[in-house]
Amino acid sequence: MITPGSDTPDLVIRNGLVGSAAGSVVADVAIAGETIVAVGRGLPPGRAEIDATGKIVVPGGIDSHTHIEQVSAGGLMNADTWESATRAAAFGGTTSVIAFAAQHVGLDLAEVVADYEALAARGAVIDHAFHMIVADPTEAALAQLPALIEKGHSSIKAFMTYDRIRLSDEQLLDVMAVAKDKGAMVCVHAENHGIISWTVKRLLAAGHTAPKHHALSHPRLSETEAFERLIRFSLLLDQPVMIFHVSTAEGAAVIRRWRGEGAKVFAETCPQYLFLTAADLDRPGLEGAKWMCSPPPRAEADQEALWRALALGDLQTVSSDHAPYRFDETGKLAHGPQSTFKQMANGLPGLEARLPLLFDAMISHGRADLDAFVALTATNPARIYNLPNKGALLPGYDADVAIWDPAAQVTFSDETVRDGTGYTPYAGRTVRGWPTTVIRRGAVIVEGGRMRAEAGSGRLMLRAGGPAARGTGRREPELDPARGGAALI
Amino acid sequence: MITPGSDTPDLVIRNGLVGSAAGSVVADVAIAGETIVAVGRGLPPGRAEIDATGKIVVPGGIDSHTHIEQVSAGGLMNADTWESATRAAAFGGTTSVIAFAAQHVGLDLAEVVADYEALAARGAVIDHAFHMIVADPTEAALAQLPALIEKGHSSIKAFMTYDRIRLSDEQLLDVMAVAKDKGAMVCVHAENHGIISWTVKRLLAAGHTAPKHHALSHPRLSETEAFERLIRFSLLLDQPVMIFHVSTAEGAAVIRRWRGEGAKVFAETCPQYLFLTAADLDRPGLEGAKWMCSPPPRAEADQEALWRALALGDLQTVSSDHAPYRFDETGKLAHGPQSTFKQMANGLPGLEARLPLLFDAMISHGRADLDAFVALTATNPARIYNLPNKGALLPGYDADVAIWDPAAQVTFSDETVRDGTGYTPYAGRTVRGWPTTVIRRGAVIVEGGRMRAEAGSGRLMLRAGGPAARGTGRREPELDPARGGAALI
Amino acid sequence: MITPGSDTPDLVIRNGLVGSAAGSVVADVAIAGETIVAVGRGLPPGRAEIDATGKIVVPGGIDSHTHIEQVSAGGLMNADTWESATRAAAFGGTTSVIAFAAQHVGLDLAEVVADYEALAARGAVIDHAFHMIVADPTEAALAQLPALIEKGHSSIKAFMTYDRIRLSDEQLLDVMAVAKDKGAMVCVHAENHGIISWTVKRLLAAGHTAPKHHALSHPRLSETEAFERLIRFSLLLDQPVMIFHVSTAEGAAVIRRWRGEGAKVFAETCPQYLFLTAADLDRPGLEGAKWMCSPPPRAEADQEALWRALALGDLQTVSSDHAPYRFDETGKLAHGPQSTFKQMANGLPGLEARLPLLFDAMISHGRADLDAFVALTATNPARIYNLPNKGALLPGYDADVAIWDPAAQVTFSDETVRDGTGYTPYAGRTVRGWPTTVIRRGAVIVEGGRMRAEAGSGRLMLRAGGPAARGTGRREPELDPARGGAALI
Amino acid sequence: MITPGSDTPDLVIRNGLVGSAAGSVVADVAIAGETIVAVGRGLPPGRAEIDATGKIVVPGGIDSHTHIEQVSAGGLMNADTWESATRAAAFGGTTSVIAFAAQHVGLDLAEVVADYEALAARGAVIDHAFHMIVADPTEAALAQLPALIEKGHSSIKAFMTYDRIRLSDEQLLDVMAVAKDKGAMVCVHAENHGIISWTVKRLLAAGHTAPKHHALSHPRLSETEAFERLIRFSLLLDQPVMIFHVSTAEGAAVIRRWRGEGAKVFAETCPQYLFLTAADLDRPGLEGAKWMCSPPPRAEADQEALWRALALGDLQTVSSDHAPYRFDETGKLAHGPQSTFKQMANGLPGLEARLPLLFDAMISHGRADLDAFVALTATNPARIYNLPNKGALLPGYDADVAIWDPAAQVTFSDETVRDGTGYTPYAGRTVRGWPTTVIRRGAVIVEGGRMRAEAGSGRLMLRAGGPAARGTGRREPELDPARGGAALI
Repeated sequence: MITPGSDTPDLVIRNGLVGSAAGSVVADVAIAGETIVAVGRGLPPGRAEIDATGKIVVPGGIDSHTHIEQVSAGGLMNADTWESATRAAAFGGTTSVIAFAAQHVGLDLAEVVADYEALAARGAVIDHAFHMIVADPTEAALAQLPALIEKGHSSIKAFMTYDRIRLSDEQLLDVMAVAKDKGAMVCVHAENHGIISWTVKRLLAAGHTAPKHHALSHPRLSETEAFERLIRFSLLLDQPVMIFHVSTAEGAAVIRRWRGEGAKVFAETCPQYLFLTAADLDRPGLEGAKWMCSPPPRAEADQEALWRALALGDLQTVSSDHAPYRFDETGKLAHGPQSTFKQMANGLPGLEARLPLLFDAMISHGRADLDAFVALTATNPARIYNLPNKGALLPGYDADVAIWDPAAQVTFSDETVRDGTGYTPYAGRTVRGWPTTVIRRGAVIVEGGRMRAEAGSGRLMLRAGGPAARGTGRREPELDPARGGAALI
Repeated sequence: MITPGSDTPDLVIRNGLVGSAAGSVVADVAIAGETIVAVGRGLPPGRAEIDATGKIVVPGGIDSHTHIEQVSAGGLMNADTWESATRAAAFGGTTSVIAFAAQHVGLDLAEVVADYEALAARGAVIDHAFHMIVADPTEAALAQLPALIEKGHSSIKAFMTYDRIRLSDEQLLDVMAVAKDKGAMVCVHAENHGIISWTVKRLLAAGHTAPKHHALSHPRLSETEAFERLIRFSLLLDQPVMIFHVSTAEGAAVIRRWRGEGAKVFAETCPQYLFLTAADLDRPGLEGAKWMCSPPPRAEADQEALWRALALGDLQTVSSDHAPYRFDETGKLAHGPQSTFKQMANGLPGLEARLPLLFDAMISHGRADLDAFVALTATNPARIYNLPNKGALLPGYDADVAIWDPAAQVTFSDETVRDGTGYTPYAGRTVRGWPTTVIRRGAVIVEGGRMRAEAGSGRLMLRAGGPAARGTGRREPELDPARGGAALI
Repeated sequence: MITPGSDTPDLVIRNGLVGSAAGSVVADVAIAGETIVAVGRGLPPGRAEIDATGKIVVPGGIDSHTHIEQVSAGGLMNADTWESATRAAAFGGTTSVIAFAAQHVGLDLAEVVADYEALAARGAVIDHAFHMIVADPTEAALAQLPALIEKGHSSIKAFMTYDRIRLSDEQLLDVMAVAKDKGAMVCVHAENHGIISWTVKRLLAAGHTAPKHHALSHPRLSETEAFERLIRFSLLLDQPVMIFHVSTAEGAAVIRRWRGEGAKVFAETCPQYLFLTAADLDRPGLEGAKWMCSPPPRAEADQEALWRALALGDLQTVSSDHAPYRFDETGKLAHGPQSTFKQMANGLPGLEARLPLLFDAMISHGRADLDAFVALTATNPARIYNLPNKGALLPGYDADVAIWDPAAQVTFSDETVRDGTGYTPYAGRTVRGWPTTVIRRGAVIVEGGRMRAEAGSGRLMLRAGGPAARGTGRREPELDPARGGAALI
Repeated sequence: MITPGSDTPDLVIRNGLVGSAAGSVVADVAIAGETIVAVGRGLPPGRAEIDATGKIVVPGGIDSHTHIEQVSAGGLMNADTWESATRAAAFGGTTSVIAFAAQHVGLDLAEVVADYEALAARGAVIDHAFHMIVADPTEAALAQLPALIEKGHSSIKAFMTYDRIRLSDEQLLDVMAVAKDKGAMVCVHAENHGIISWTVKRLLAAGHTAPKHHALSHPRLSETEAFERLIRFSLLLDQPVMIFHVSTAEGAAVIRRWRGEGAKVFAETCPQYLFLTAADLDRPGLEGAKWMCSPPPRAEADQEALWRALALGDLQTVSSDHAPYRFDETGKLAHGPQSTFKQMANGLPGLEARLPLLFDAMISHGRADLDAFVALTATNPARIYNLPNKGALLPGYDADVAIWDPAAQVTFSDETVRDGTGYTPYAGRTVRGWPTTVIRRGAVIVEGGRMRAEAGSGRLMLRAGGPAARGTGRREPELDPARGGAALI
C-alpha cells in the first residue's frame, strides 16, 4: 500500500478510460501487490507502468455461471479442465468464474464440494467460486448444507428439469428453506419438465430427431411456467432466487412484473440468447448440435426484449453458461452418428467469447455505455453473489483488470478456440474490441496473446451469506457494528 | 493536478468511507484546485488535510427541482433569495441546484432566462442550472428555445395544471417537439387540471376551505391521468420526459409499466411524499397551510410504494421541490387570515432538509445502502440532466464533497431554519447523520456550522443536450469521435 | 292478448330458428297487436301466418349510435332525413335507432331536443330515441338536463375532440355529475384533441392533405389517452360511461383492464372497424374521402382484437355510427375539389349494412353463434340504454322482429343504396344472409323488398334513468316494490 | 306437443316471473310430456295448472361439480347415496347434477364408469352426468378414453394435488391431448402439490394440527401457481380447461388475464368461497373440521373479488363441490378424536344449500339480477358441459323448472339437513327465497316439502364433445349441415 511520502505502487495503468458502473473517466489506476490502491489523474510512477492511452480499463469480468470439468447429469465429462477453461476465460477478459460443484444422486454433498475445490485448486488460473448443485436433497445432504454455506459456498443451484438431477417442488422448497436460514442464494434452471418431456416424446415419435428439433422441444411456455412457479416459492419463503439463462421476451416480462410486486428475483441471460437464434440449429446433418443448449436460442424479437430487460435492470447479469462438449464421440456425438437431439449433450462454450461479444454490441456498436458494460459483467455479479473485493476498480479491491483495445478486431474461428471444445458457435463473426492485457490480483496474466499464469494460481473465493444474498440490497458493513466486519469481506 | 514526483494536492480527505453508486470503500480523496484528482488508500499528503475517519464522504448533493427567488403563477415572490436558498442547501449537503427560469404569459423567454441567470450569479453560493418554464409557447418563444438549449439550458419545465401557467395538450406537444430537435429534457408537473378545478369548485362551494381540504382537492386519479397522457405524448414524439414529484403508489405503477414498454420516462419524488402524509395538513386554523404543496402528501402506503419504486429504479431521483413561502402575509397568508386553501400559495421548503432526511432513512435506519443514497442524490440527477463533471467522486470531476458524520443527531425546528421560509415542515423530527463539512469545487464552504462562501461564488452550469436527454442512456463521449469532446463535458 | 279458449294471435311466425341471447331454438312466435305473446312449438294459428321454416327469427336490430338529419359541428346538414335513414335501417333489419339531439354552442338545449323530436316524429318509420349532445354546458343547459333526462332522454353524448363541440375536462365532469344525479348514461367520443390537432397541423404543413392522411392524423395513442382520462372521470364520480367506436386493439385492452378493476365502462365498436382498414382510404384523388371517419379504420390486427373483445364482453355492442355525407358538393366535397382531408366531413353510412355485415361474419362465416349476434345487435343495447320492452323475443316485449334468410346473397353497390348517402363503403362486397321480412311492433314493414310503413309511424322511446344506466347491472323491477313500476318502464 | 286447435298442454305454470339469462318477464310456461312447449302470456289452459303469481320460475339448477357415492383418494366412502344426494339437490331446486366416475390407481377406467353409471341409475331422482376422474392414465386407460367420450362422457377431471390421485405434468398433458382429439372438456383441481405438502409437513412438525391449520396448509399462492401452469398446458395444446373451485382474488385475476390473452379457460367457484371464510374453521376441538375443504375458504376480500369475477364473466358457474362426510367415525373423524387436520376427510355438503344461498344473495339482497342467477346456475353449466336441452326455459328444452317463492324464509340447521352428511356448514343462517315446487322433465318431483320421485327415475345425460367443449363458443347446429343434427343434441 502507498504510504504518504514513501511507498511506490507496483503497477500503474496510466491514462486509460477507467470504467465503473457509476461513471467512467480517463485516469490512472495504481496497484500495490494484489490490490488497487488508487484511481487518479497524474498518479506517481509505479515500479511498472502500462500505457493505456486510448484503451479502456475495466474490472476483470466475472462469469457467474460456468460448467468446468464437470460431469453432466447424463454422465458425460465436459470438454474442459480447469486449466483449459480458465485460460480461455482469461484471454476473454474474465478474471473470476463461478462454476458448479455438482452433486448427483447418491453422492455425499460435502465430498462433492471438496472434490471440485481440489480440481479447481489444481488447474485454475483465475479466481473461482462454486454454486453447489443439489440433486439429491436427502436429510443428510440438507444437514450438510449449512456448514458448506458458512464455509463460503453461499449459493446453491437447483434444476426444475432434466432427468436424474431435477428436484420436485417439495424438494426445491426444502433446499430453499435451508438457503433462507443461512442467507444463501438459490440459482435455478427453470423450465417445466413435463412440457419438455411430453414434447420430446411426440417429436421423437414423429421422427423429428434433428438438432433443430431440439429448439421445438422446449416450448416458450415451459420457461415462463417454471418462472411463475419458482417465483411463488420465493415469495412463500421470502427467499431470493436467481433465474438462470432467461431466453424469451415473455420470461423477461414475468420477471419484471414480479420484481414490481416486490419479489426477490434476480435473473441473467447469456450470449447465446442475445446473439443466436433457433435458426442457428438448422444445419445439415448433426452439425446443428453445436448450437444446442437449454433453453434453446429463440428469435430476434427475444434478443431485443432481453437487451431491453438488461437496460431496465430486470436482468442483472450476462453469464456464459459455458458448457463445453466437443463435436465428436467424446461429446455431442457420444451416442453415435445416428443420435437424436435427445441423446446429444446440451451446452455451448462461451467463457472466452462472452465479453468480446458484449463489448462489441454494447460499446463498439453503441447499445449501451461503458458503465452498463461494467455493471453487467463485473459489478452486478460480484454483488449478487457476494464475491469479496471483486467487481469494481476501487481502492482496496482486488486488482483484477482488463485493458481493452477498442480498435482491435478479432474474427472468431474454430481454429483459434482456446477452451477444450474445439469449436465456437460464433465462428466467422468479427468483433471490434478485445482485452489485450488482463491482470489478476495485480499480476499480468495475459499480454501479447500469451498466458503468463501458472495452473493453480487462481484462488478460491469464499463468500458470506450476506445481505445481497438475502435480496435486500447491499448495506455498508463498516457502518453496522452489529454485523461485524466479516459481513461482506 | 498531481504530476509524478512533484505535485501536491491542495486537499486530502483522509480515511473516510467514500461513497459511490457502484461501491463504497474506505479511502482518501485528493483534490487539486477545483477538481478531484485521486481516490485511493495512503495517498500522499495534501497542503490541507481533513481526517474523515468514521465519516462518510459522498458527492455533494444535487437538488434538481427547486424554486428560488421565483415569482409564482399567482404573482407571489417566494421567500428565498439565491443567497438564502443556496446557503441552506449547502448546510444540508447540497452543492448543486437546478432552479427555474420562469416565463409567465407575455414575457420574453430569453429575457426571463437572462434575468434569472443574473439573480443567481449575484447570490448563489453553490453551482446552479435552470429548467426553463415555458408558460407561453408563442411562435416567438418557440423560436428562442433552440438557442437557449444550445447555450446550455437543456431542460424545459411544463405545467399541465395551474391557471395562467399550464399548457394545453397541443402546446405541450409543440414544446416537446422543439425539445426533441435539440435534445432537451422536458420536465412536467403532471396533474389533470380539470379534475382539480372541478373538485376545488365543489369543495369551496360546500364550505370545505381549510388547508386539509387542499389534499382532497387533488384526487389521486388526477396524477395518474396526467402521467398516462404525458407518457403518450412522449411516445408519440419519442421524446424523453421527467415526471416531477410522483406522489402516489398508482403513479409509480404507471411509470413502471410504461418504462417496461420502452417509454423514455424518468421520474422523481420528494421528501414530502416519503415523510409526510395528508394528515399533516389537518391542523387547527390555517396552520396546516405550512404542509400544503401540490400534489399533496398522500398516505403511508404511498410512502412505502415510493420507496420501492426508488429501489427498483422506476423513480431515479429525490428532489426537494423547494418552494418557500413564509407563514405570514408575505406568503401563505397573503390573502389574509380568512383565506381558503385555494388562495394560499402551494409549496414547502426542503433544500436543507432533503439530504438529512434521506440519509437518516436510508443509511441510519437501513432502508438502503450508501450506493443507493449516492445514486439518488447525486449520480442520477447529474446524468439525467447532463450536469458536467458532477455527481460522483471520480478523478477529473468537480470536487463537490459532503462529509457526513453518521453519529450526529439533529432535531429540526423552526428556530434553526436557514432558508427564508421561517418554518420547517419537519419541525420536531430528529435525524441521525449530518453533513458537517461541505466542499464545493475544492473549497470548504461549510464547516463548524458556518458558511464560508461568498454570495455569487456559485457557478452557472451549462449543459449539453446530450444522449441522456435523449433517453438512450449515457455513452462515453471520448469513445465516439463523431460526437466530439463536448458532448457531455 | 291471448286469453284461454278465445283469443287468436294476429300473427304467428312459424317454425323459424328463434334467436335469443340465452339460447336459440326452432319455434313459433305469436304476436298480438304490437306485442309478442308467446314463443312455442305448435302454437295455435294466428290471423296471419309467416312460414319461417329454414329462416332465422331474431329481435329487430337496435342501432344505438346514428346521426340522422343532423347538423355537424362544421355546420353541414347530413345526407339523410329521418325517413331516408330509418327506411334504410329497416331494410337492414333494424327496428330501433338512437340518434342525436345535437346542441351547438349558443343553442338552448331543451329547444334542440324538441326540434329533433319533431323531425323524427315527422319522418321516422321505426322507433327511436335520442342521446343529447351537450356542446355548451352553460349553467342554463346544465339546469335543463335533469328534466330532459326525467322525460326519458336518459343518455348524453359528449365529445373530447372536434372544434366547436368538444368539452373541456371540467365541463365533461360537470355534465357527468348531472348524469350521475339523474341516472343517465354518458356516451363519449374519446380521442385526444391536442394530439390530433398537433398532427393535423404538421401533416397539412408538409402537404400531406389526401384522405389517406386522415388516418395518420388520428394516432392510435390519441384513442387510448382519451379512454384512460375518461375512465378516470368515471371512477372519480362513480358514473358509468359508454365509449363510442373503439378502433384499436390497445383501446380494447384499456377497457378490459379497467372493467377488471371495477370501472363502470361500456363500449361499442362499429362495422368500419371490423371490416375496413386504413388502406381503404388510400385511393386516387379524393375518392378515399368516402372511407373517412373518426377514428379512422385501423389495421387487420385491430379487427381481430375487436372481435375478441366483443367475444369477451369487453365491448358490448356494435353500432353503425351512421354519419352520411354525399360524395359531392353537399357533403364530402363541400369545400371543393381541392379540399384537404381536414376540410372534408367525417363519417360513413352504415344503418343498412351493419346487420348484414355482422350476420355474414358471425353466422354465415362462423365467427360466433346466433346468441352472440342477438346479444350484440339487440339485447345488449336495449339493456344498456334502457329501451323499454326492446331487444328480445319475450312475451310482453314489443314485436320487433327480423326474419333472416341465411341463404340470401346480396352484393352491396352504390346503385342500391337506400339511405341518402349515394354510396356505400362496402360496394362490391357480397354477404350471405339478409333480413327479408321486418316487423315493427307487430306490423310487417318490410317484405318483398318493399317498405310498407308510413313516414312518422315510428315512435319515440322514452327511457328511464335506470339501474343499467347506473352500471350496476339490471335488476328485476317487478321484484322491488321500493322502486315501483316505473323503474324500467 | 300442442298442435293447432287440438292439443292441450299437460301442465301450465301460470303468471310467474319467468327467468332467462337474456331477460325475465311475467309469463306462463306450458309443458307437454317432458318438454317445454311454450312461454307466453295468456296461454291456453293445461291439463294441470300451477299458479305462480308472485313466484319466480327458473330453469332447474345444474350442479356441475358434485361427489356422490364416491370413494375418496383416501379410501373413504362419502356420506351420500345417489338417492340421498339427489333428493337433497332436488329440494334445493337442482334438477341436474354432474358427479364423478372416479378411477383410482390400478382400476380399469371403463369398468369404473360403468359402475358409477349403475349406482346412479339405481338411486338418482334427477338427471345426471359424469366427469371421469383419471388418476392412472396408463396406456390402457388413455386408449379407453376416446370411446367413453364418444359415448357421451365428454368431460374429464384431473387433480394436480392429493396423494394417490394427482397427475404429473406430463400425465396431465397426455390426458389433455386425448381430450383435445375428442372434444372433451378437462376440469382440474388446480393447486400446487409441493407447496401444500411442504407446508403441511412443517405445520404438523410444529404441532399445528387443528382444523384451522388446514386453511394455512393451502397457501394462496398454491392456487395461482397451479392456474398459471394449467393454463399454459391449455395454451400449448389449444385445449379448453375448466378450473374448479377458484378461492382467491388472485386466482380470479389470473384467469381474467389469460382469458384476455385468448386462453380457453373456464372457471367456477362454490358457495363455500362466497359465504364462508377461514375463520369458520377456527372452532374448539375438532368442530372446525366441518368447514374443512380444499382449497379452504379464504377471506372476505376474496368473497368480494369472486362476486366481481362472476359479474364480469371471468368465472361462469357456481357449483357446490358437494363432498359429504359425516362428523363422526364414518367421516371426518375416521382417524379418531386425536386426528390431525391432515388425517381428516376434506369436503363440505352443498347440493341443497347452493341455490338458496345464491338466490338469497343475488336476488333477495340484490347483488345481481335474475338473468345472472339463471345464467350462473343453469344456462352456463349446460352450455359449457354440453348438457342436451338443459339450462333454459325454451320450447323444446326439457321441462326442468324450479318455482321459487321469493318471500319464503328458511333457516339452515343440522336437524333439517336432507343429504347424508348430518350437518350443514350454514347452520343458523337464514335465507329469503326457496324453491317450493320443483319439476323434472315435466314431473313435479318436489312440492309441499315432499319428494314425489322414485329412486332411479333420474336419467343419464350423455353429452357430445361439441363446440363448447372446444372453447370456441356455441354455434347453432341446425345452421351447419356439415355437423349434422347430432352436434349438440
